Amino acid sequence: MNVEFVSPFLSSIMKVLSTMAKLEAKAGKPFYKKSEIAHGAVTGIIGMAGEKTKGTLAISFTEPVILEITKRMLGEEQTEINATVTDMAGEITNMVTGGAKNLLSEKGYRFDMAIPTVVSGNGHVVNHKSKTPVIVVPFKTEAGDFFIEICFED
Amino acid sequence: MNVEFVSPFLSSIMKVLSTMAKLEAKAGKPFYKKSEIAHGAVTGIIGMAGEKTKGTLAISFTEPVILEITKRMLGEEQTEINATVTDMAGEITNMVTGGAKNLLSEKGYRFDMAIPTVVSGNGHVVNHKSKTPVIVVPFKTEAGDFFIEICFED
Repeated sequence: MNVEFVSPFLSSIMKVLSTMAKLEAKAGKPFYKKSEIAHGAVTGIIGMAGEKTKGTLAISFTEPVILEITKRMLGEEQTEINATVTDMAGEITNMVTGGAKNLLSEKGYRFDMAIPTVVSGNGHVVNHKSKTPVIVVPFKTEAGDFFIEICFED
Repeated sequence: MNVEFVSPFLSSIMKVLSTMAKLEAKAGKPFYKKSEIAHGAVTGIIGMAGEKTKGTLAISFTEPVILEITKRMLGEEQTEINATVTDMAGEITNMVTGGAKNLLSEKGYRFDMAIPTVVSGNGHVVNHKSKTPVIVVPFKTEAGDFFIEICFED
């Protein structure tokens, strides 16, 4: 996978969380996904497809961080993973991909976005069936951790 | 959602299973998805995106049926949900969408396909964040049941 695909997603999520939730996120060291276990309690997944390019982005949030993001963005506290929280995970996944799509389009990579899907449930396992390696980037925030998984074929 | 989108996916999965696994699948009555619970043990998800059209297809297999399909397609028995089985779920999701894409293209609906994702784990919950209702079609086979979930925006 071309690493050029990765950075637009990183800058996009940092911008979305900083702007919408006043939450600063710090990217850790990227690694290739080896185990199939999702790192978080809620995972937003969105497909991207173009004539030459296809991919999938997954953002896997631990429970504390998605609850805090939901609270900051909606101004009301949620105490568990419910429909409001999964909606928020889907919305963030959509916004991040929209931001990255614009940045990638400037570099000549064009694709359209599918409808986001949100998966939850303890111990859920997310496995991208890609020919290219899946890159995971861990993020830290004051409210907890989340992980971005990117696979892209060009 | 335009119901015209549904039937190409149904005929495509029946053809794929009949041709590749010698398994006849019978469609039951479609219904709108109300609960977020996935019906199966393994769910293949794929995004579809075009200039005017976007959607997501999920195929949720109960354990007995995906184990039997894997056995018939590969000729070797699997006793649990492992990487071979989730690969198979991803491959079927991809083939079914490829078949439906061709049929829908004849009707003037054009889209490209993203990279499939496969979710497993007991009690995993799949929630499509679509503005339009999600249609579920249950299928019965001699090896067990599976469910197709379609959401499409045009």
